[in-house]
Amino acid sequence: MTSPTDRLAGFAATTRHADLPDSARAVLRLSLLDVAAVAIAGRNEPVARITRDTALAEAGVPRASLAGHATRLPPRAAALVNGTTAHALDYDDTHFAHIGHPSAAVIPAALALAEDRGTGWAEFEAAALIGVEASIRVGLWLGRAHYQHGFHQTGTAGAFGAALAAARIVGLSQDQCAMTLGLVAARASGLKAQFGTMAKPLAAGIAAANGVEAALLVERGFVANPHALEAAQGFGPTHAGVADATAFDGLGQDWLFEGVSHKFHACCHGLHACLEAARSLGAVDADSIAAIAVATHPRWLSVCNQPAPTTGLGAKFSYATVLPMHLLGFDTADLGSYTDALCADPGLRALRDRVSVTADDTLPETAARLRVDLSGGEALEATHDLAAPMPLDARQARVRAKATALLGDGPAGRLWDLAGGADCVTGFARALREA
Amino acid sequence: MTSPTDRLAGFAATTRHADLPDSARAVLRLSLLDVAAVAIAGRNEPVARITRDTALAEAGVPRASLAGHATRLPPRAAALVNGTTAHALDYDDTHFAHIGHPSAAVIPAALALAEDRGTGWAEFEAAALIGVEASIRVGLWLGRAHYQHGFHQTGTAGAFGAALAAARIVGLSQDQCAMTLGLVAARASGLKAQFGTMAKPLAAGIAAANGVEAALLVERGFVANPHALEAAQGFGPTHAGVADATAFDGLGQDWLFEGVSHKFHACCHGLHACLEAARSLGAVDADSIAAIAVATHPRWLSVCNQPAPTTGLGAKFSYATVLPMHLLGFDTADLGSYTDALCADPGLRALRDRVSVTADDTLPETAARLRVDLSGGEALEATHDLAAPMPLDARQARVRAKATALLGDGPAGRLWDLAGGADCVTGFARALREA
Repeated sequence: MTSPTDRLAGFAATTRHADLPDSARAVLRLSLLDVAAVAIAGRNEPVARITRDTALAEAGVPRASLAGHATRLPPRAAALVNGTTAHALDYDDTHFAHIGHPSAAVIPAALALAEDRGTGWAEFEAAALIGVEASIRVGLWLGRAHYQHGFHQTGTAGAFGAALAAARIVGLSQDQCAMTLGLVAARASGLKAQFGTMAKPLAAGIAAANGVEAALLVERGFVANPHALEAAQGFGPTHAGVADATAFDGLGQDWLFEGVSHKFHACCHGLHACLEAARSLGAVDADSIAAIAVATHPRWLSVCNQPAPTTGLGAKFSYATVLPMHLLGFDTADLGSYTDALCADPGLRALRDRVSVTADDTLPETAARLRVDLSGGEALEATHDLAAPMPLDARQARVRAKATALLGDGPAGRLWDLAGGADCVTGFARALREA
Repeated sequence: MTSPTDRLAGFAATTRHADLPDSARAVLRLSLLDVAAVAIAGRNEPVARITRDTALAEAGVPRASLAGHATRLPPRAAALVNGTTAHALDYDDTHFAHIGHPSAAVIPAALALAEDRGTGWAEFEAAALIGVEASIRVGLWLGRAHYQHGFHQTGTAGAFGAALAAARIVGLSQDQCAMTLGLVAARASGLKAQFGTMAKPLAAGIAAANGVEAALLVERGFVANPHALEAAQGFGPTHAGVADATAFDGLGQDWLFEGVSHKFHACCHGLHACLEAARSLGAVDADSIAAIAVATHPRWLSVCNQPAPTTGLGAKFSYATVLPMHLLGFDTADLGSYTDALCADPGLRALRDRVSVTADDTLPETAARLRVDLSGGEALEATHDLAAPMPLDARQARVRAKATALLGDGPAGRLWDLAGGADCVTGFARALREA
């Protein structure tokens, strides 16, 4: 049986741009816009600033752009900073099978090296897609046990994806791609014990930087154990990986990356399904609402069920706040909507008191059921599962609206146009740093 | 009970130079000379060259010296390159309790930041000693199960030691030292699956660079889980650590680093005990030798028992070669002694055929028993255990002789003088890069 490394290295080295389905390319374009938008919007977060300032103090050859900052840095450093910055708001895309954030860890690695090497758009697109797909496959191969044991797939599986994206940009052979995977196995890392701290977003940056550095070392002839991903005492066996061989089924034909979830609300992921359910109800006259009942998976009750928060941060973890926000017309995609003043708004507070939340363990974690009782006696009901596929045109409209909410119409539109490959990678990188 | 992190952070932040025993400082001086000598001697090894060239291509602020190279780099990069280079020959010091190579991972981190910050010698000495001691204590705390599971303590425990050495140089508070440990827990790494490849020495470099970067991030205000070393799903629990609380007994009073073993032969560690036993016999007339019998721990028979190697590399894994080398007056400390020509030497081959090797599982891994039968009927016998303490003056003479064998008398003498603190750190760093 072909080993995971051989499968992945063959995939990375031999997939042609012509093999990439339009559907996967279309989703990549969404993620390019999305990751750029959340990185630019997150550039002044403390974790982004500290990581960037540390890298800027080192300086180095100015070859790769940073999100929202004029100074360029070496590709490894740019990957570290941009990966961290892209995950700073925790507003970047998520893949539920991978159990992680593929774009934040992989795209900064591909972009930094593509800018450095003057890579054409098609080859950048192939590298980025191969990288995110590989990180999802490795995440599946490591499995839920790896995550439950305490590892953070964004950092662990992400490093392997970033490594292959980097290897592809650099133009490594199949054997060298295997060597790059083996080398990055020596340092792929990430702990869930860091959730809630700056070290969570840093894990995406470290994955990106690890991938870049591994590919650059192998390009110069570095020799590692080329099967350190799956070897006895290799990465998987030492990191509670379940070695699910089906993780690679259809590799190169089926692009699991197409199932990535973009976040459309600047709040806790546990609130997204009920917001989507509310959205599906269309316009509702807020004055006519008698009661709002949410049913959700039990795990979220300890995560995002603050009944009466008084701060913008608290609002991001509150069913009772975000549902009234939506019904009253506040843009839940806009970071700026979540303020202390919002929590004091009389209209919002009146509606908030009518929200009740109950646990329903028959619902998956990705789903919520909503019922809105109107004063006339009518009841509106909707259920939404984030894992359900969404038509491309609807996804596109939502991602673009989110980018516009974060960056404004002009910058969001420019990035969208560039993400379609109209210009070279240099143009996209320039737009990233000048936004 | 005080947590490991609190013990270590308190140790790092509050130990004064005046608290350092002379005996520990004397051993540190040996390791400073030793690590500098093996790094300079290893500077042209492929792994050293590739890692250095990759870092030089990034460039950056010229603040920290590289072993045997004129260009200076940012501290993180210098730590990466020097840590890797110091372990390139696998000729640097070993601590059997820690199960790793403390100096290669820690001293480059301390030195790079000390040069960058203009740190005085005493403060550098304190940081380096605190770092190596901490790495040994963390190695003990993780325990043999961690190593047996597949982790490489040089990289894992080493990163925590490097982090504390860096934190001390930067002048972090006790709380910040804890934060630095917590942050480095997110990426401390190293796999034994990489043994026999360039990724083994790289693990020392990665540990050093991880430590430097963690301290620099925390200096700027980075927030991580400050108990990620021992927390539920923290580094120890996720990495098969046994959490041996006795590992910290006597921390700050007893300096386990004093028990570090310097390698005195440029060959496989499994051959050292029998070479030391041979050495204890004094001069033996090679022409009068009828038979040489070695008894060794069984594990070494599959590692370093090549009966008739034809290459210099093979000679480094051959009882039958290194014992005749010693008896015939070849310097086994000198890398240049191990050549293909040596293997073809008629005198050596004649003696080689008289060597027999047997396994004895009553011997520890660190010991060997030697018997030399002379043609007159007399038999010489000696047993040596590398774990047995060695008087300081004897160690000093051996380390200095090794440095002289590697570098020549002048450079070795200059480094020795500088390692005593006669000059500032800048002088030692200059000697390192100009050697």
